[in-house]
Amino acid sequence: MQLFLAEIQGNLFELHTDEVNHCVRVLRKSVGDVIQFITGDGNLYEGSIVTITKKSVSGTWTKVQDQFGDVGYDLTIAIAPTKNMDRIEAFVEKAVEMGITRIVPIICDHSERKIVKTSRLKKIALSATKQSLKGALVQIDEPQSFDEFIRQPHENLCIAHCETDTSKTPLKHLLIPNSATTIMIGPEGDFSKSEILRATKAGAKPVHLGSSRLRTETAGLVAVAVVYDTLGK
Amino acid sequence: MQLFLAEIQGNLFELHTDEVNHCVRVLRKSVGDVIQFITGDGNLYEGSIVTITKKSVSGTWTKVQDQFGDVGYDLTIAIAPTKNMDRIEAFVEKAVEMGITRIVPIICDHSERKIVKTSRLKKIALSATKQSLKGALVQIDEPQSFDEFIRQPHENLCIAHCETDTSKTPLKHLLIPNSATTIMIGPEGDFSKSEILRATKAGAKPVHLGSSRLRTETAGLVAVAVVYDTLGK
Repeated sequence: MQLFLAEIQGNLFELHTDEVNHCVRVLRKSVGDVIQFITGDGNLYEGSIVTITKKSVSGTWTKVQDQFGDVGYDLTIAIAPTKNMDRIEAFVEKAVEMGITRIVPIICDHSERKIVKTSRLKKIALSATKQSLKGALVQIDEPQSFDEFIRQPHENLCIAHCETDTSKTPLKHLLIPNSATTIMIGPEGDFSKSEILRATKAGAKPVHLGSSRLRTETAGLVAVAVVYDTLGK
Repeated sequence: MQLFLAEIQGNLFELHTDEVNHCVRVLRKSVGDVIQFITGDGNLYEGSIVTITKKSVSGTWTKVQDQFGDVGYDLTIAIAPTKNMDRIEAFVEKAVEMGITRIVPIICDHSERKIVKTSRLKKIALSATKQSLKGALVQIDEPQSFDEFIRQPHENLCIAHCETDTSKTPLKHLLIPNSATTIMIGPEGDFSKSEILRATKAGAKPVHLGSSRLRTETAGLVAVAVVYDTLGK
């Protein structure tokens, strides 16, 4: 199934500008053809093309399916961006395939990278959303500081860290069916002791992700996989 | 901790040739210095440098730890190499971090890539082994055909496929504590119906990895993460 991203207004749809070339020039769709599209709201739509111009494809639509590709859980991962952007990009792609809800880049005491282009991450996320057949787009926030993040209210907030002098619970033991989950993943070099203290004071539960020493993006992927496997449909 | 790869013979160790430059020129180690190394046999060793030449570093050793970084499970993943090598390389790296035992590239009916340079995969695996502090090296086999693979005896053989007309069990329900696990992951385009039939005839149990449509390497990572989370220490 070839999915496009579009917007709907009234009974009309219009493809996202970035999709027009692929639709018309690559796939050679023309007036009268039927295409499948998503808008990011969770549904799957079918559109019948009425008008094609140089920069637009539009037509009429019907809704085909609610909660298209819905995985059945609500997961936010707040993750320190890796020094090497390829690594955080791979995380975003695979986390979207597994159906993550929201990704928040957080800047921590030991963060080597403090700037992240979320536009590129969003592009990768859109491609993974279409490829893995989902109707909902992941929310990718602009980077924020660790403290900014923990000041906000979060459902079932967990912090995955490597410090050995505090007790930690395996992540899966803290997951609650039908409740949202928020997991914080630290940078290369881990969260600082002071950050761990501030997070637990703010209500975060310390978790561990097994006995291996994992890279940041691998820890993120393991966290998503555990939630996907434990709470997913 | 900075780990090197070395060989031991009698009471002497010698660093792997590829490690000499990093040890002597980058880290500026000299005679009398103590280094930590692995040989791939699962142990952590400590070596005291006795001789440095242009192409070799050698000395005497003591064993520091048995089963260094051991994750407590035995997992073989037989996976169809992805068209894009970056993807299978990312799989190898992250699977090693989680402590996989063996990786077998299998060539399937729908495989777009039939040739794999395992030397590059082994290099990535070694780097991930050292980075994630493990004493055992993953075994990476030369590519083999699907049929060659299923003809061999395997403990707890599972096949993860996307066909919807046969019943499948969630992977975690088939995992057996203290038993090895073997999981087959298909190419882009899945295993063929005939392959699925041949595998089940050979005793493979059909499993699913949740409701999402996952890329080959993501399916592989989810499988490793589920085993790591369920059977790992």
